[in-house]
Amino acid sequence: GRVLVLNTGSSSVKYRLLAGAERLASGTVERIGEPGSPVADHEAALKIVATELADRGLGLDSPELTAIGHRVVHGGTTFTEPTLITEEVVRKIEELVPLAPLHNPANLAGIEVTRRLRPDLPQVAVFDTAFHSTISPAAATYAIDREVAERLRIRRYGFHGTSHAYVSREAAAAVGRPGGNVIVLHLGNGASASAVSGGRCLETSMGMTPLEGLVMGTRSGDLDPAVVLYLGRVAGMSLDEIDELLNRRSGMRGLCGDNDMRAVQERLAAGDRDARLAFSVYCHRLRKYVGAYYAVLGTVDVIAFTGGVGENSPLVRQTALDGLEAMGIAVDPARNARGERIVSPDDAAVKVAVIPTDEELEIARQTLGIISRTNRG
Amino acid sequence: GRVLVLNTGSSSVKYRLLAGAERLASGTVERIGEPGSPVADHEAALKIVATELADRGLGLDSPELTAIGHRVVHGGTTFTEPTLITEEVVRKIEELVPLAPLHNPANLAGIEVTRRLRPDLPQVAVFDTAFHSTISPAAATYAIDREVAERLRIRRYGFHGTSHAYVSREAAAAVGRPGGNVIVLHLGNGASASAVSGGRCLETSMGMTPLEGLVMGTRSGDLDPAVVLYLGRVAGMSLDEIDELLNRRSGMRGLCGDNDMRAVQERLAAGDRDARLAFSVYCHRLRKYVGAYYAVLGTVDVIAFTGGVGENSPLVRQTALDGLEAMGIAVDPARNARGERIVSPDDAAVKVAVIPTDEELEIARQTLGIISRTNRG
Ligand SMILES: Nc1ncnc2c1ncn2[C@@H]1O[C@H](COP(=O)(O)OP(=O)(O)O)[C@@H](O)[C@H]1O
Ligand SMILES: Nc1ncnc2c1ncn2[C@@H]1O[C@H](COP(=O)(O)OP(=O)(O)O)[C@@H](O)[C@H]1O
Repeated sequence: GRVLVLNTGSSSVKYRLLAGAERLASGTVERIGEPGSPVADHEAALKIVATELADRGLGLDSPELTAIGHRVVHGGTTFTEPTLITEEVVRKIEELVPLAPLHNPANLAGIEVTRRLRPDLPQVAVFDTAFHSTISPAAATYAIDREVAERLRIRRYGFHGTSHAYVSREAAAAVGRPGGNVIVLHLGNGASASAVSGGRCLETSMGMTPLEGLVMGTRSGDLDPAVVLYLGRVAGMSLDEIDELLNRRSGMRGLCGDNDMRAVQERLAAGDRDARLAFSVYCHRLRKYVGAYYAVLGTVDVIAFTGGVGENSPLVRQTALDGLEAMGIAVDPARNARGERIVSPDDAAVKVAVIPTDEELEIARQTLGIISRTNRG
Repeated sequence: GRVLVLNTGSSSVKYRLLAGAERLASGTVERIGEPGSPVADHEAALKIVATELADRGLGLDSPELTAIGHRVVHGGTTFTEPTLITEEVVRKIEELVPLAPLHNPANLAGIEVTRRLRPDLPQVAVFDTAFHSTISPAAATYAIDREVAERLRIRRYGFHGTSHAYVSREAAAAVGRPGGNVIVLHLGNGASASAVSGGRCLETSMGMTPLEGLVMGTRSGDLDPAVVLYLGRVAGMSLDEIDELLNRRSGMRGLCGDNDMRAVQERLAAGDRDARLAFSVYCHRLRKYVGAYYAVLGTVDVIAFTGGVGENSPLVRQTALDGLEAMGIAVDPARNARGERIVSPDDAAVKVAVIPTDEELEIARQTLGIISRTNRG
């Protein structure tokens, strides 16, 4: 069957129509609701998607369309699996809006419009958090007052879950260890790490929000929480200003002005000092997470790099893993430069793999999985 | 020569008079400035110290007294070594008050009173941050806007430095690897980890403030910085309330009600679920830092446990390091239970040591070191 995968963000809709792994159509509608944009709202955007598909004879009303799979950012502790969308499911996703105030409302807008356009078609919500729902209480619980944490739903949720699910499975298979122990490093504009064993996620670096963890394009990642208090008290910044600083003016952009890793690496090659500092902070953080997740897993079969940076930057892979031979980790320079699927030497105890992520394919697969289970059940 | 070591906190003064490693006198004056307390202020407290010493024939005016060593919490980037106190040094410690608003003013009060009592006596400031001044820019720099960070002096400083200096040196010597690679786990009410190579600190877990890092008695340690924003916006808490929550009602106390590890372990043994969760969060965090610092160092000669918990809890040592054989880390149960100096098996690649810390002795040594260098110079 065919699955339409929709990723409805606050200002854009990305879509992809898949038949198995084959991509029949894809596209993006941008600048939704922005001043001067022809696309007034999510309803208008999704009508454009429907029209683009219909123009190619692949319209929403075509009988081959089996289901729509929606990416939904925050599933809280409510949704630990992809879920067939009903009125009740919509209501529960709404209840999670305070946890993801930018993302869940946009995801819901996408769901509501497509349900109106095709009320009879099965639609499935695939959550960014779901793959991480298996992390242990020891990993999920922040060491703060438990009553406060439970009342306000403060815990580690983790994000990028469909990517971590897809890449960890592919990486384990690529090294002949399906069900093995995998460290996934998803390095895109956002960046996150996970520790996966037997297909179950044990630990992940993003936290209650996508701000925690690795250094990202514009986000700080890990930071002494007292820095937030200090920015408020000593610098007199408002919470909104601090939010903007940490989410949009931090990370690589904050350190050197460029959030695009290609630009950073070009400046690095030209001897730029700010780019060098930014790059070293980025790789040092990565290295610490590799070590931390090695300890969480006990043994590691494969370290998988994915995302725009992970897939395309031999320098990041090499620098982050340099000098870890005592842990059985090594990178073969020639394989790494060529970006082969396995970039570790043959005799390395821990394999290092480059695995292009495919979140849309994973959403389509999970969507079909739920549909077929629902039909059988 | 004899050194008087003074640790002047906001509500207490601890003192110890040392001749070499020999303790001639020690004591604590508490409840300074508290309602109903007979000790009105730091001046009164230090006069009590002077009287207690004089009563034993060890008064501040005794000719054998070579110097006073003061613990000072925050040396910023200004002080990277123990420093002979002058008017200018006092002024510079004052400039650092915004970075340590609770601690530096108390430390300064101690310095000012003793300088008035003995203006001629050499007095040395030994900073909690100084040992960590050698961490690389990659470890010290938070991934936030650099201009903001530099203007507001936001970076990783690290604390507990005298303990990490002392314990890393002792641990390396204890395993016959002076100058080797050491992971120090200082686990007291406050808790911090460090990675030390060749006597130089490369990384440490406390950050701009002592809030970051390991789970502590009442402090959260690592936390998604967005949780602070969420507590302000969604829960409507003020910055002072959040500060109080994260510093005093978090950590082990926040998780299970008890901040004392002995009490936590007793409840754990009795099957208490909250204590079990708290203990597992505590050990999981420790394990992640061990792995992270292993990766920072590349190879590890010895992991050193210190502080009240690190020195006295076989269960913490065993649980935190359980299952790390692939990294060459193991704990011998019998040695660990007996609390021997080396608790790893003879054939372990990475030794595990229990090293009682002695911050006062280290302050005295560093104080004498500066005095003799100054006299020679
Ligand atoms: N050849 C390359 N070398 C280094 N970085 C690259 C390369 N190609 C893409 N990138 C980086 O990948 C990042 C975007 O990753 P991507 O996964 O596409 O982001 P997103 O999180 O938005 O999906 C950018 O920082 C970009 O510079
Ligand atoms: N036998 C023990 N087992 C477990 N924990 C212990 C034991 N003895 C002391 N502790 C713990 O050590 C901690 C205090 O450590 P200490 O280094 O004295 O603190 P501080 O940071 O105040 O100097 C307390 O949590 C206490 O419960």
